[in-house]
Amino acid sequence: MTVELISVGTEILLGNIVNTNAAYLAEKIAILGLSCYHQSTVGDNEERLEDAIRLALSRSDIVILSGGLGPTKDDLTKEVTAKVFGRELYEDAHTKERIQSYFDQTGLKKEITPNNWKQALVPEGAIVVDNHNGTAPGLILEGEGKTAILLPGPPNEIKPMFERDIAPYLNRLQPEGIYSTMVKVCSIGESKAETMVADLMEEQTNPTLAPYAKTGEVHFRVTAKAADEETAGKLMEPMLQELKKRFGNYIFTMDENVTMEESIVDLLKEKQMTVTTAESCTGGLLSGRILNVPGASAVYKEGYITYSNEAKEKLLGVSHETLETYGAVSYETAREMAAGAARSAGADVALAVTGIAGPDGGTKEKPVGLVYIGCFVKGKVRAEEFHFTGNRSKNRDYAVIKALTLLREELLEK
Amino acid sequence: MTVELISVGTEILLGNIVNTNAAYLAEKIAILGLSCYHQSTVGDNEERLEDAIRLALSRSDIVILSGGLGPTKDDLTKEVTAKVFGRELYEDAHTKERIQSYFDQTGLKKEITPNNWKQALVPEGAIVVDNHNGTAPGLILEGEGKTAILLPGPPNEIKPMFERDIAPYLNRLQPEGIYSTMVKVCSIGESKAETMVADLMEEQTNPTLAPYAKTGEVHFRVTAKAADEETAGKLMEPMLQELKKRFGNYIFTMDENVTMEESIVDLLKEKQMTVTTAESCTGGLLSGRILNVPGASAVYKEGYITYSNEAKEKLLGVSHETLETYGAVSYETAREMAAGAARSAGADVALAVTGIAGPDGGTKEKPVGLVYIGCFVKGKVRAEEFHFTGNRSKNRDYAVIKALTLLREELLEK
Repeated sequence: MTVELISVGTEILLGNIVNTNAAYLAEKIAILGLSCYHQSTVGDNEERLEDAIRLALSRSDIVILSGGLGPTKDDLTKEVTAKVFGRELYEDAHTKERIQSYFDQTGLKKEITPNNWKQALVPEGAIVVDNHNGTAPGLILEGEGKTAILLPGPPNEIKPMFERDIAPYLNRLQPEGIYSTMVKVCSIGESKAETMVADLMEEQTNPTLAPYAKTGEVHFRVTAKAADEETAGKLMEPMLQELKKRFGNYIFTMDENVTMEESIVDLLKEKQMTVTTAESCTGGLLSGRILNVPGASAVYKEGYITYSNEAKEKLLGVSHETLETYGAVSYETAREMAAGAARSAGADVALAVTGIAGPDGGTKEKPVGLVYIGCFVKGKVRAEEFHFTGNRSKNRDYAVIKALTLLREELLEK
Repeated sequence: MTVELISVGTEILLGNIVNTNAAYLAEKIAILGLSCYHQSTVGDNEERLEDAIRLALSRSDIVILSGGLGPTKDDLTKEVTAKVFGRELYEDAHTKERIQSYFDQTGLKKEITPNNWKQALVPEGAIVVDNHNGTAPGLILEGEGKTAILLPGPPNEIKPMFERDIAPYLNRLQPEGIYSTMVKVCSIGESKAETMVADLMEEQTNPTLAPYAKTGEVHFRVTAKAADEETAGKLMEPMLQELKKRFGNYIFTMDENVTMEESIVDLLKEKQMTVTTAESCTGGLLSGRILNVPGASAVYKEGYITYSNEAKEKLLGVSHETLETYGAVSYETAREMAAGAARSAGADVALAVTGIAGPDGGTKEKPVGLVYIGCFVKGKVRAEEFHFTGNRSKNRDYAVIKALTLLREELLEK
């Protein structure tokens, strides 16, 4: 079955927003085993929207439209799709009630305007999909072997609606549904990780195994076709066990929604350890990433941005001699920064980053991209040297993920 | 004149990457005063790519294709476009030489493969646009009143090529070129900013004035139509003067490429002042943003992540009584954090952030989104209360930009 995406919105045509919905939907569709050969974007224009819908329905089985379901006159997706399917709109009592209760619950003081009730109008015969994060319901229209799925534009509305109702609907359309599990791996590079499971990837039938390279991480998606989720789970189980056997501790989560920093905060909580950070070139991005995890206050109390040599001496107790002899960007400084941060913060573990992010500051001996990361865990310090080849921003991002990876490795050794 | 975008690449269709090129090109096209009614994405498939190009040429004057100019067999954009225009490919000596010298200069040790010379093939009669950041040249084909512009996919290649050669080319196609200047404003909200220049926006003829809301900033684009850049500059000058008069110090830059944090680092350098940060809920994002500016080491020496109350007392000298009486999230604590950070770091100015980013930790008196920002400048402390309504990530982003804005306001008063 083929699926085609139409993004509706003049703000996308004008480049005012980046179309992240298309990437999100495209990835989900690929995961569901459906083929997508076309994506297009049209503005809030009746004629061009109608043309786009007709063209999409002429060449694909399913068209997913995102955006244009708002309460204003500009929002035309529902009206035009209903016209193409030859359906009238009527006021859906259930949706009207949900809109009323949404306004009540969110305590939005503004009075409901007549416009808002436009969102309660639905095409005859459409499947109405409740919106748990907004007022525009999703809509599914079926006719003449074709399907149109209308979804709201805001990412915080479209994503939960797709996960909850649209993915299961699309699975039901297929003789067998597609279910998947993400296995996230760190500590090894993409090519090595792929080599380690090359045979599994080649022998792929059901389930299949596919790799995705991320910054400093490799994700493997295990996908099974089956009549239902339980059967799919049983099909995937041997493959998941095999991956666990081969990757062992390299696997930091088997939950699609868990990030590296969340897995580390969980690990620290489990071990009842506290962590601190001492950052030079990353300048707060590492602590910012750890503290992006809700509830990180249980393991993180304080941290240090030590950009100058003086700060490294004063806040972390790095010795003046070390800085003079080896320089701020060195194994020795990274080690002393980590040990000193742990001491200053009274933390069980500490991460320290010192390097040259660029674009300036590089020399022949210490070029841009050279970064040392120190990791202190209960008395033991390990430091590693890295050579990154990106711009300032990329080098800092890589340093952050490499620091988290190093911490994880050291924690698992304890 | 109408322009249509076609993004070529299976990785976009599969959702493996977000199509930022489309947003970039769409914005640039709008700035040039050209209309864009369609954007589409196709994979590396000959038949569908040909269909997409023919459809685009049938309804738009100019089609801009991005991606698919690489050296592999999968890359088909040039071959298919040449076919549509009825042109043969030949090896362009100039391009071949540039590819050779690119490999020489970048010191890429890998030998050039025969594949690489595929990138030296160009369609008969095409305008060849040099790529200063990669090996695939841009190509412009003109015929039967239609134009196809082929650009490489990597963002770091397409952007400089567009700025340097494609924008001037598009400007030359029009009876008058379009030139613009961006005026970036902070310290006031979008609606107030718009009200302040509503008359200028309404009377817009040449130049025009258009607002763009960003997180905590408002950008105004002044656009003029003229035969050349110098004439456009003269047309824009009175409007720019008027904006300066009305917004005064709210304008933090009139350079499209300058960010808020860069403007603040420049201001601190100019005033020969150093800055430090003390962060609770933002946890390093504020320092990370300031230190994203190359050369920020001249003004930033050290900073503190003080997530726990103990850290606020120990590192910043916030009094135990203040924390007991008013709580960690309060005017008083923000003030003491800022003053204490400046004292600890020996810095001239200090920013402190304390708040409840969510999703947990809120109470009726102190709900999620409540943030206090303290700003110390040479002995004087100002603190402000904010109520943000986003999720954890958005609340932290807003806190960072509001802190920078507050600092800028205080610096300008000195």
